[in-house]
Amino acid sequence: MNEPGAGRHFLSEIREQPAALLERLDDYVAAGRACATRSPSAVRLVAHGSSDAAASYGVYAFGLLPGWTALRDSISLTVYYGADLDFSSSVVVGLSQSGQTPDVVAFVERARSRGALTVAITNEPGSELAAAAELTLPLEAGEERSVAATKTFMNQLAALALLAGAAAGREDEIADGLRATAELLGEAIPELEAAVDPVATAFAYVGRMYVIGRGVEFGTAREIALKLTETCRVAAEPLTSTDLAHGPIAALDAMFPVWTIASPDESLSALVEAASRARAAGATLVASGSAASEIEGAAWRLPVPKAPHALLSPLLSVVPGQLFAAALAQAKGLDADHPERLTKVTLAQ
Amino acid sequence: MNEPGAGRHFLSEIREQPAALLERLDDYVAAGRACATRSPSAVRLVAHGSSDAAASYGVYAFGLLPGWTALRDSISLTVYYGADLDFSSSVVVGLSQSGQTPDVVAFVERARSRGALTVAITNEPGSELAAAAELTLPLEAGEERSVAATKTFMNQLAALALLAGAAAGREDEIADGLRATAELLGEAIPELEAAVDPVATAFAYVGRMYVIGRGVEFGTAREIALKLTETCRVAAEPLTSTDLAHGPIAALDAMFPVWTIASPDESLSALVEAASRARAAGATLVASGSAASEIEGAAWRLPVPKAPHALLSPLLSVVPGQLFAAALAQAKGLDADHPERLTKVTLAQ
Repeated sequence: MNEPGAGRHFLSEIREQPAALLERLDDYVAAGRACATRSPSAVRLVAHGSSDAAASYGVYAFGLLPGWTALRDSISLTVYYGADLDFSSSVVVGLSQSGQTPDVVAFVERARSRGALTVAITNEPGSELAAAAELTLPLEAGEERSVAATKTFMNQLAALALLAGAAAGREDEIADGLRATAELLGEAIPELEAAVDPVATAFAYVGRMYVIGRGVEFGTAREIALKLTETCRVAAEPLTSTDLAHGPIAALDAMFPVWTIASPDESLSALVEAASRARAAGATLVASGSAASEIEGAAWRLPVPKAPHALLSPLLSVVPGQLFAAALAQAKGLDADHPERLTKVTLAQ
Repeated sequence: MNEPGAGRHFLSEIREQPAALLERLDDYVAAGRACATRSPSAVRLVAHGSSDAAASYGVYAFGLLPGWTALRDSISLTVYYGADLDFSSSVVVGLSQSGQTPDVVAFVERARSRGALTVAITNEPGSELAAAAELTLPLEAGEERSVAATKTFMNQLAALALLAGAAAGREDEIADGLRATAELLGEAIPELEAAVDPVATAFAYVGRMYVIGRGVEFGTAREIALKLTETCRVAAEPLTSTDLAHGPIAALDAMFPVWTIASPDESLSALVEAASRARAAGATLVASGSAASEIEGAAWRLPVPKAPHALLSPLLSVVPGQLFAAALAQAKGLDADHPERLTKVTLAQ
């Protein structure tokens, strides 16, 4: 069972805000301009864990703002296999809150030596990753004491939106959107904290879940699934709404809940259709996101305010998932600050 | 419980061979040369389900043979959000066994209208996908009667290796490798069929699993996890060996087995390290792949012969997973030919 205070960093860090990052707006603008000067044929995002979930979001930030092709690149292709790829017209963005993820550092070093413009996005500007990259963008998230990342993830989303916005010459629009989003977050959190508690009570014995989102919310689905896995020991798998229908739908039943993230953009109809299939399979649905009301038959609804800019929706959508993970860990008697077998800096190969 | 004959197509189709594809070698060579003429800045692979697992393999086939950057592209960015990406120096490869996956067809149509060289890899040369693409490469897998794909997946791997090989002017080497691999497969299957049965008996009540592989075997991990999910209703999640350490390791215990795919290439040490962490967490390990003997403490070993070419390892590595899924479905009284709520052609958004 829990010690007094277990999970308190995790919970308090969810309540922190991404607005501090805007104090470094000039750095982001300079980096965005430097990327634009390259006219990159590819933006290669490299990361693991929560940072890799943020990278999924980056694919959309770069695709929708400057209109660039961004990919979560294969680290093993370059670092282990030594593939002979052309990096000369690439931007490489390495994401690591600690700046110490070994193969991300190795990837950035190799890409830089082969002519890529390399950017580190990290909460530790004195880290190896920062030293390896040509440009460093600080996350300004402050010290994160919970092993499971929350505020650094939020700030990674903000950082990617701001870098992509600056690359498109639209940094003011994104900065304004981030300020407004931070305000909405502050207002929404107390109500969401109360709303997740009964869901956590109901789900205390759940062993597996799917978390579905599509488009800009796929990274959110990945991050919520990871939080549930690491802090609550639930086998939670993220899926795009379409992938659910291509196989996993067969595994659903009444003991296998599905968390849906519905945002009011062009991917919403796919999400609504997938939720309907899951409901027909007997799954208990949780509807989150600012378009949660569009999900029919949900047993639980955790709506968030509509973001001032569609691309910024994930900064709001992720919060109910983070708060639910905190509440579920508490309900299960687990310490969300110190998940078993995890450390703040993961040095795995 | 099972009707007599339930799952028999699934099992018999696993035993079929990819060599028929080599009868279309000329088509693959012509397509590979056409791709090479483009000197593509990106090969965009688009697919869902098993075909998307094959696309994960394609990233390595194109990266290691012609040295091109390939990515599993975001379908929603182009099809739903209408992002303004530059396709003029891209090759697009759409993968669908039925050739009817709606958003894959839509992606290929848009990419072609914007100047991409488009290639369809499908088992149905008369399909919409084939009509949408400039070039069509047939899988030559014959009719697949089980809803869960097996032989079409195998042939998609062979097709991607052959296309990437032809793009690099190395089609003879890959074709020879495929012929030799097909022979090894035929020899290995009877023994593997016998070997998976006791594992299936032991795992009859397992509700969740991780399947880990890295590099060229990550697509194999995705496909095995999908087979277990759709035919056995196990919540099986694929992870790279490194991602296991970045969170999911916290969820493991003795009731949460880990299937490992070990191939003798540069990524093996990362796989061995991850397996060791999983074992230390109390997980039951299954060691598969031709380097299965390198995994310490495995409760079960399902080794396969060493492939004649490292890139072709997945054609052998996937088979124990497919056979295990057939045996586990049988042990659970499920019909692997007809998973609940799935149809051969998935028309989800």
